Parts: sequence; structure tokens; C-alpha cells
Amino acid sequence: MQKQVAKKNARVEEVFNLFITHMQEFLKEAKLNHEEYTNFVNWADRLGRAGELPLYADVFLETHVLRAMYTDKPGTQPSLLGPYFIEGSPLVESEPGQPIVLTQRPDEDGEVLIFRGKVSSTDGMPLANTRVEMWQNDNSGKYSAFDSDAPRYNLRGHFFTDENGTFEVQSIVPLPYSIPDQGPTGEFLEYVDLHPMRPAHLHLMFEADGHETLITQVFFEGDQWLESDVADGVRTELITKLEDKGDHKEASLDFVMRRE
Amino acid sequence: MQKQVAKKNARVEEVFNLFITHMQEFLKEAKLNHEEYTNFVNWADRLGRAGELPLYADVFLETHVLRAMYTDKPGTQPSLLGPYFIEGSPLVESEPGQPIVLTQRPDEDGEVLIFRGKVSSTDGMPLANTRVEMWQNDNSGKYSAFDSDAPRYNLRGHFFTDENGTFEVQSIVPLPYSIPDQGPTGEFLEYVDLHPMRPAHLHLMFEADGHETLITQVFFEGDQWLESDVADGVRTELITKLEDKGDHKEASLDFVMRRE
Repeated sequence: MQKQVAKKNARVEEVFNLFITHMQEFLKEAKLNHEEYTNFVNWADRLGRAGELPLYADVFLETHVLRAMYTDKPGTQPSLLGPYFIEGSPLVESEPGQPIVLTQRPDEDGEVLIFRGKVSSTDGMPLANTRVEMWQNDNSGKYSAFDSDAPRYNLRGHFFTDENGTFEVQSIVPLPYSIPDQGPTGEFLEYVDLHPMRPAHLHLMFEADGHETLITQVFFEGDQWLESDVADGVRTELITKLEDKGDHKEASLDFVMRRE
Repeated sequence: MQKQVAKKNARVEEVFNLFITHMQEFLKEAKLNHEEYTNFVNWADRLGRAGELPLYADVFLETHVLRAMYTDKPGTQPSLLGPYFIEGSPLVESEPGQPIVLTQRPDEDGEVLIFRGKVSSTDGMPLANTRVEMWQNDNSGKYSAFDSDAPRYNLRGHFFTDENGTFEVQSIVPLPYSIPDQGPTGEFLEYVDLHPMRPAHLHLMFEADGHETLITQVFFEGDQWLESDVADGVRTELITKLEDKGDHKEASLDFVMRRE
């Protein structure tokens, strides 16, 4: 083997070699013919050129990465980061005695949601001053900075837990939504006979000193798409109850972070 | 599972489910962390948007598809179709007593090559009137319709075997060349410490009634890249000798097609 460049990343090489070994096992069983291979490459090329590769990967592969990493480990199960996270969300702070309000338009449409959480370590210790990043879709099922014309950081923000490891944030109830299904990802959904729906969810990311970053989602009981989430992001412990308080809804969940 | 569209393609579903099963096995061993997953997706997105997905697939995956299909089967081993095949090449015909001349510029640079082949069936019967498609790079290592400014079908053409299943075509000696290595595919090559070179080769595709289409390549003894072809397209039986005839080179190979 000729070597023309210095070895850059032994881990990539290790992972690639493992991938090829398992691909070979896959091919022995799948017995792809050459036309099927060519059809796959043509579809994957359309997917890539359309910029849908992150969408496809996050919907169809990320859940398996997470399950391989975390199933049977202590602490709250992660769920998908997904393709709709963006860096740089604003810090959202509260006036004394008021809840934190997630960044939103003055006339933000939707049912008001008060969401409460408590963050602790796997040893039970409350985690004060944990950075909590939250993002979600709006009442038309759209994410800011993607398919919505809302301001870039609408329904996105970060804040910190109090001295008891708790937080309370006011937002709106997110909606179930359809992943983009008019491009090559939608073509794939038709081939494998899957609908494009995800149940309503909040995205949350927790960062605390000495702990693994926890990226997860919160779902709500009774959502019709919980059992068939196209992205397989639902985990039983991430489902909470949406309580009706007349003029608003309330929900809460406790989160447990793993020590590094 | 909600079903919103009619089942379109049970084979895609079967192959996808097998792929996921093997991906799960891969992930159990590779133990990707979430940052590695995200880095992979970012790279794959760049690869896709750059239009390099077919290049990457043909260089790093197609050989495994072919080996799974054909190793230990009778007949000539296939090699990569590769990303440089295009439809619609001209029929190249010969004047009586003259060899077929592959489409080329009047002043085509390079060493003249006379390439002869004989096409037969696995039972030994010569296959007359077999359609032979041939394409190759030029003396600067470039393919027409891709990185070259030659006419679209330069060094591309198709012709038919004679009543003995043989053909003789005049072309130029192809060159070893570097796959495109300035984009995300090149980034990957650096990570896994591989050079970007392929040995010189002719591309050939044979179509005969009642037989599987044979897509293969011809390589030449002594080429310095035979052992380390980045795309792993070389098979021992596809290597022939480039004979020096003074003012030109000659080479030949027999091809055996499998019955359908």
C-alpha cells in the first residue's frame, strides 16, 4: 500500500473497516443485483444533492446509534438531536416571580404550556446551574430557521436550573408534524410504506459540569403518533402527561444525567 | 403502524430491514459516540451536496456488491461500472479490412493500442453479434463528459462481435489516474490514509441475448497501482499483457458470459 499522506485519524479507519465488514455480511444476505445497486446510488445522489442527507440520517439511523450507546445505562434515555438544532440560541431570563418565557413572537399562536423539570445526577444529587437548551416547532408545525418565516431563534432559547436543579419555562404546546416528504426522503417513505409523522415533542439539551451532555425529547400521552414515530425517537420514560389547566396546559418531567 | 400509502416496493423494505439489522450489529461494535455520529453526518452532507456520493459509493462500496454477487461463479468476473459511464455512445464501425477505431479526436494524444477480445458463453460457444460498449480515459487521465474538455463521447463507443465472437478495436493506451481528491471524498482518503490512484484500465460492457450483462474492466501487467487500486476493482483474471509492437501496443483478453 502506497502512503502519500500522514495518517490522520485512526478512529475513522477503525470505524470504516468495521462498517465494511458488516456491509459485507449485509450484502451476502441481501444479494443486491447490480441494477439495485445502481438504483440505490442514483437515489442517494438525489438525496445528497437535495441536502436531505442529515434529515434521512437523523430519521432513520440516529435512533440506532443512540440505542447502541445508551440502552440499559442509568440516567435519562437520550433521543434524537435531529436536523433542526441550530447553535447560538438566546439566553432567556425571567423577571423576579415570573416564569422564564421561551423566545416567541408577541402574537405567538398556540396553547400556552408551562413546562417544569428537575435535573439531577445519577446519584440523586440535584444539578443546580445546569444549562438547558430548548427548541420546538410552532403552532403550524414548523421550526424557525428551517421551514418557518418566524425569526431565526423563535421558540429556541437556553436558561439555567435554579439551586434545586429545577426550572419552569413558558412556551406553547408543540404539534405533531410531518418530516419533509416531497423529496428523496419522501420517495423512500413510500417505498417502505411509512407515514412521515412524528409525535409532538420538545427538544431539550442539558449540560452540567462533570456530566455527559444529555440530548433528549419530551413527548405527551395520548399523541396518536407515539407508537409509529417515523424517526423512532420515543422512549417510554420520555412521555409525560399534558394537564389541562383551563387557559393553559402544564407538563413536567425529571431528568437524570450520567457522570462523565 | 399507520399506513398512509400503498406498499410500493417490498424489495426496498426487505433490503432496508436487512441493512438496519446489520447496522445495529455494526453500531454495537463500533460504539460511535454522538459527536462521531454528528461528524459523520456533517461529512456525508458535504459529500452529498458536492455530488460526490456516486463517486464515493463506486470507489468504496461497489466492489463489495460485486464480490458478494459473483465470487466463485463461472464466467468472467465483473468489475466496477464506476461513475464515468454515460448512455448514448456512438456505434463505431470499421471500413472493410480495417480495425474498428474508438471515437477519438483527429490528433488524439497517446500510444496507439490495438485491443482484441473473444466473447463466449460459459458452455464455450462463441457469442457472435454481442454488443460491446467501451470507454476509457485519455492521455491526460481524463474522461470525456466529466473532467475533460474533449467532445462528449470521446474515447467512448459501442460495436458488435463478429461471427466468431471476436472483436478488434483501435484506441489509445489508458492511463492510471487519480480519483477526484479535492472534495469530501479526498477528505475521507486522508482520514483512512489511502492514496487516490487507480491503475490504468479499459471499461467494457457486454450484452448478448440470453446472457447476463457483463460489466468489467481490463488492466495491464506491470502497472504500479494494481496492488493498491483505491477502488479495489482489480481481479487477477482481468489483467492482461501490454505487448510492445514498436509503433503501437497490443493486448487481448477473452471474456466469458453467464447464461441468464
